[in-house]
Amino acid sequence: MVENATEKRFFDCEIRVRYGETDCMGFSYYANYFVWFEASRSELFRHLGLPYTELEKQKIYLPVADAYCKYNTSTSYDERIFIRVAVTQCKMFSMKFSYQVLNEKKDQILAWGYTTHVFIDDKKQTVKVPAEVKALVTLYELSEKTID
Amino acid sequence: MVENATEKRFFDCEIRVRYGETDCMGFSYYANYFVWFEASRSELFRHLGLPYTELEKQKIYLPVADAYCKYNTSTSYDERIFIRVAVTQCKMFSMKFSYQVLNEKKDQILAWGYTTHVFIDDKKQTVKVPAEVKALVTLYELSEKTID
Amino acid sequence: MVENATEKRFFDCEIRVRYGETDCMGFSYYANYFVWFEASRSELFRHLGLPYTELEKQKIYLPVADAYCKYNTSTSYDERIFIRVAVTQCKMFSMKFSYQVLNEKKDQILAWGYTTHVFIDDKKQTVKVPAEVKALVTLYELSEKTID
Amino acid sequence: MVENATEKRFFDCEIRVRYGETDCMGFSYYANYFVWFEASRSELFRHLGLPYTELEKQKIYLPVADAYCKYNTSTSYDERIFIRVAVTQCKMFSMKFSYQVLNEKKDQILAWGYTTHVFIDDKKQTVKVPAEVKALVTLYELSEKTID
Repeated sequence: MVENATEKRFFDCEIRVRYGETDCMGFSYYANYFVWFEASRSELFRHLGLPYTELEKQKIYLPVADAYCKYNTSTSYDERIFIRVAVTQCKMFSMKFSYQVLNEKKDQILAWGYTTHVFIDDKKQTVKVPAEVKALVTLYELSEKTID
Repeated sequence: MVENATEKRFFDCEIRVRYGETDCMGFSYYANYFVWFEASRSELFRHLGLPYTELEKQKIYLPVADAYCKYNTSTSYDERIFIRVAVTQCKMFSMKFSYQVLNEKKDQILAWGYTTHVFIDDKKQTVKVPAEVKALVTLYELSEKTID
Repeated sequence: MVENATEKRFFDCEIRVRYGETDCMGFSYYANYFVWFEASRSELFRHLGLPYTELEKQKIYLPVADAYCKYNTSTSYDERIFIRVAVTQCKMFSMKFSYQVLNEKKDQILAWGYTTHVFIDDKKQTVKVPAEVKALVTLYELSEKTID
Repeated sequence: MVENATEKRFFDCEIRVRYGETDCMGFSYYANYFVWFEASRSELFRHLGLPYTELEKQKIYLPVADAYCKYNTSTSYDERIFIRVAVTQCKMFSMKFSYQVLNEKKDQILAWGYTTHVFIDDKKQTVKVPAEVKALVTLYELSEKTID
C-alpha cells in the first residue's frame, strides 16, 4: 500500500467500499468518508514511522477539532478507491490533514476534505505538537482540484 | 418509552431506522440490528434503575461473549420499530439478553436474537454478577415465535 | 420530541449516545455526528409535514454536496444530547442545513456544523427544489456561538 | 491477500481495526465483526471468480437469514487480523458461510461465527442457488476450535 516510501509527503490508502458503508440511495453513505479519512491518517502515521498507537502510549491524543468533506462523485459498493492523505498544516498545538478521495486509476478526485486535530494529554489538556512528530512530517498541499 | 414500568420484565426500545443504517440493497444492514440490541440493553438497564454507566463507574464491564440474530422480514429507512429486550438468563458470571424486533404495531416479529455477556473488572478478570444487579432483574423469556 | 410545533423554524432531535458510537478514546467518534445530523434532518422533514420518504417516492433525492462539523466539547456514552437543525439556505437547486449539538440542558453548544444538499432525480440529474418543499421551509440561522 | 489461489477452499481477508470500529471499553465493538464478515464474503466471492456485484447485476441478492458470532479474545485499534471465510453449506435456496477471526500470526482464533443467506430476486422471491455459483464453491469446514 506504500506509494511513495522515499518521499513521505503523502500516502495513498486503499479502500474497498463495504456493503455496510452504502445506503439505500445506492451509494456510499456520506459519514463513512470521515471513517476512511481516519483510516488513511492511521496509515500515514505508520508510513511516517510513528504509529498512532505509539503516541497514545505516550498519553498523547489527537481528537478532531473540525472536519470537512466535499463530495463530487458518488462511490459504490465494492469500488476500489484511494484516500490520498497529507499533513497540510502543523501549528503549535494542532495539525491539519487534507484528503483526496481518488478513483482506482487515480485520475479523478471523487471527494476532498480536511480534518484539524489538537494534541491533548490524558487529562484533556492541550499540549504542544511533540518535536519528534514535527520532525517526521513534511507539509504537503493536496488540492481540491488537481491531482499530483 | 417505558411500556411496563411497574412490571419491569421487559422493555420496548423505540428505534427509527436511520438512512445510514440501510445499505444499497435498500433495507437495514444486518450488523445494525446488533447496534439496536445494544441500545435497547442500555435502556433496559436504565429502566431497571441501574444505568450501565453506573456499573462502569464500579469498574464492572459486560463485554459480549456471543451474539445471534435471525432475520425474518427486512426493515427500511425511517421505519419505526421496537426492540423488545429482556434478561432471559442470569448465571454466576454471565447474563443473557433476548431481543424481539417488532414492527410499529407490535404484532409482528421482524427479527429475533440474543446476546450473552460476561461480567469482568478493569483488569479483564471475570467477576460474579453483582447481587444488586441480580436483585433488579426478573427473568423473562422472549420467544422467537410469539409476542406477549 | 417536537419543541416548537407552531413555529416550525428549527427542530430539536433527541439523541442518546450509543455505546457503539464511542471509540477507544472514550468519547463519541467524530464521524457519528454526521449520522446524527442526518437523523435530525429526517425529523425536521417529518416535522415540516413532508417526510423524506415522500420525496423519494417522487423520485427526488438529496445527496450531500458538502459537510462540515466543528467539535467544541466531547460527548460520551449514554449522554442525552439534542441536535438542533434548521434550513439555513434554499437556492434554486440546493438546500443548506445547519446543526447545533446541544447538551441536555440546551445551554451549551457542544458542536456545530452544516450540510449542503443538491436535489436530483432518479437519473442523477439535478432538479429544482420543489415548490412544495420551498413553501414548507422557513429559513432560520443557527449560530455557531449563541443558542436561541 | 490471496492465501490459497489454487485451492479456493477458504480465503483470508486482512482487516486493520479502525479507530471508529472500537468503543469506549477500549476494544473493537461487537457489531463490527459482522461488518468484517461481510467484507470477507465479498473477497471470497471475488476470489472464487464471481464478484458479488456480478450477482447483483443478474438481480440476485443474498440477504442474511441469520448471523452468529462467538467472541473469545478482544481486538484493538490498529490490530492486524484476518477473517478466514469459507462456504460451509450449500442448500437448494441458501448458503452458509463460516468465519474465523485470526490474529496476525494466524495461530489464535479470536472469534468465530457464521451467517446464512437466502438467494432472492429483485421481487424478493426466493430463488435457487445458481448452478454457476454452486460450481465455483468447494465446501469447507472452519472449526470453532482449530486452525487449518
